[in-house]
Amino acid sequence: MIIAVDATGGEHAPHQIVKGAIKAAQEYKIEIALVGKRAILHVLAGRYINKPWLTIVNASQVIGPRESPIEAVRSKPKSSIVVGTNLVRDGAASAFVSAGNTGAVVCSALLNLGKIKGIERPAIGSIININTAAPVLLIDSGANADCRPNHLVQFAQLGAIYTKEILGVTSPRVALLNNGEEKTKGNRLIQESYNLLKKTNLNFIGNVEGQNISKGTVDVLVTDGFTGNIVLKTIEGLGDTFLKLRDVGRVLSNVSHLQGRAFLFDVGLGSLVKRIDYREYGGACLLGVNGNIIIAHGRSQAKAIRNSIGLAKQSVDLGISQILKEQNYANYRHR
Amino acid sequence: MIIAVDATGGEHAPHQIVKGAIKAAQEYKIEIALVGKRAILHVLAGRYINKPWLTIVNASQVIGPRESPIEAVRSKPKSSIVVGTNLVRDGAASAFVSAGNTGAVVCSALLNLGKIKGIERPAIGSIININTAAPVLLIDSGANADCRPNHLVQFAQLGAIYTKEILGVTSPRVALLNNGEEKTKGNRLIQESYNLLKKTNLNFIGNVEGQNISKGTVDVLVTDGFTGNIVLKTIEGLGDTFLKLRDVGRVLSNVSHLQGRAFLFDVGLGSLVKRIDYREYGGACLLGVNGNIIIAHGRSQAKAIRNSIGLAKQSVDLGISQILKEQNYANYRHR
Repeated sequence: MIIAVDATGGEHAPHQIVKGAIKAAQEYKIEIALVGKRAILHVLAGRYINKPWLTIVNASQVIGPRESPIEAVRSKPKSSIVVGTNLVRDGAASAFVSAGNTGAVVCSALLNLGKIKGIERPAIGSIININTAAPVLLIDSGANADCRPNHLVQFAQLGAIYTKEILGVTSPRVALLNNGEEKTKGNRLIQESYNLLKKTNLNFIGNVEGQNISKGTVDVLVTDGFTGNIVLKTIEGLGDTFLKLRDVGRVLSNVSHLQGRAFLFDVGLGSLVKRIDYREYGGACLLGVNGNIIIAHGRSQAKAIRNSIGLAKQSVDLGISQILKEQNYANYRHR
Repeated sequence: MIIAVDATGGEHAPHQIVKGAIKAAQEYKIEIALVGKRAILHVLAGRYINKPWLTIVNASQVIGPRESPIEAVRSKPKSSIVVGTNLVRDGAASAFVSAGNTGAVVCSALLNLGKIKGIERPAIGSIININTAAPVLLIDSGANADCRPNHLVQFAQLGAIYTKEILGVTSPRVALLNNGEEKTKGNRLIQESYNLLKKTNLNFIGNVEGQNISKGTVDVLVTDGFTGNIVLKTIEGLGDTFLKLRDVGRVLSNVSHLQGRAFLFDVGLGSLVKRIDYREYGGACLLGVNGNIIIAHGRSQAKAIRNSIGLAKQSVDLGISQILKEQNYANYRHR
């Protein structure tokens, strides 16, 4: 299995990306294709450069984080994002992982891999595990800012299959993220989506509110990409606040409370911070395109890249992309 | 100053509401008008019933949390929500505090108090102080699920004045909550609102993402009520998770780590939990109507009700409702 990795994308590229990719190759026993400027990667990959599990794929152009996705993808065919996507299209890689411009990754996947039949818009499915006993898939968490009810139904379908396959949930509970539980609550998009979802064979449990993300009452949380992205980043901001607490804890534990730091971890703050710290977080699948595309957080450091590659490997092992492709979305039957 | 309090609304009504209201009366040296079923309130208010600072105002009807706001308000003129709002309309009370059906409170305020000139939609402004050094006003946090760009500009105007008055911020930094910082990011609503806000005299700093809620980079965070409500409740859900950590900490500190609990508070977890625990949280102002209306969280217990009454008192002391009324929203000049 070869996983292509965008060595150019993200705040900590290329150094942390290369580091995480090498770690993943060794740990998961897979082959890595690093996509980026050859000369730089040769230096960074150093003594691993001649290993049989490492390939360098040259990509001379760079798409910046603030570039307009569609223009960038069209005008930069030699960018790491486009080259990486095309490795998947051509079968040279089983998956592509990028921490670069999310819009550009989505756009390149749309243009170069194409959508699967029955899906009008691919969506990003992010697994949130604030509650380790019951992780939640938030879909769409950022690919589509403006959505129609049809799109949300398709996100629900993609999300239900994905959750079943990757989290092993037999009959995933699907809900709409809303500002109230009642059927009459919500904006027009959610109210119309509610009526459509009622007609599917999904295990649709209705509307849930924001606090349910950490309560274990739902498996697939369906939302438009605008709201989903804001929710993810709100959680991220709180994660930063807790990181600071943890750091204060470290300092204090050196000064006066000898057992302090251990205590902080005993009560679960350490692991909670880890679970919501996006610098370590393992990326998210772009669902609904012909191929396995993993979108890593722009702030990913080596650990997050390793974890994202782990998610890519898992997706390939489970055949996620193929399974999603084989569904009949127009006449959906929940398996 | 008489503050009317809805003794019927919220999960913990009437007991916790009455308890909190009595506490507030004693602490803030104000008069309270408890609105609800007379017989019940006479029993609950017990030995305070003849105090000069306590009045019971009978309201024989109840609006439930799941009732349709407009129908409930129209069909139940003797409900605590309608009676309480009318005390403000008639000048018998300076403010009304309710933890009841939020939609019904908004609807009753619209129908009975009316909107102030230049404001098409009143909005809920919630102060979020995850970061104590820099609280953020989230507006609208739940009154309007579907909004137009005009509405968001008015929310920004209301929010800027409110923040200046209540938090003492001279030139509040106003931003749109978005899924990216660039001008081109966001859904259509946000993109159009961005262009309108650029033309105002507000200190508009552009778009910010979800993580900025806890970063102290913005004073007034403008959003539609659908997104705002979901963000608030996402934070609330995380608050619950931390409450659990705190409780685990309490148990552990009895067993093995003697200094554990103190340590948890030293690093700030105790106070953070308090700041985002909605059972203690002090409510939010409904801005844009003719009168001071405070919306308390449905899960409010006595402390939260006391704090909400404190916010009502502050609003009355500062003359918030009057100040907002005197603005020219069509030709806005930032003061």
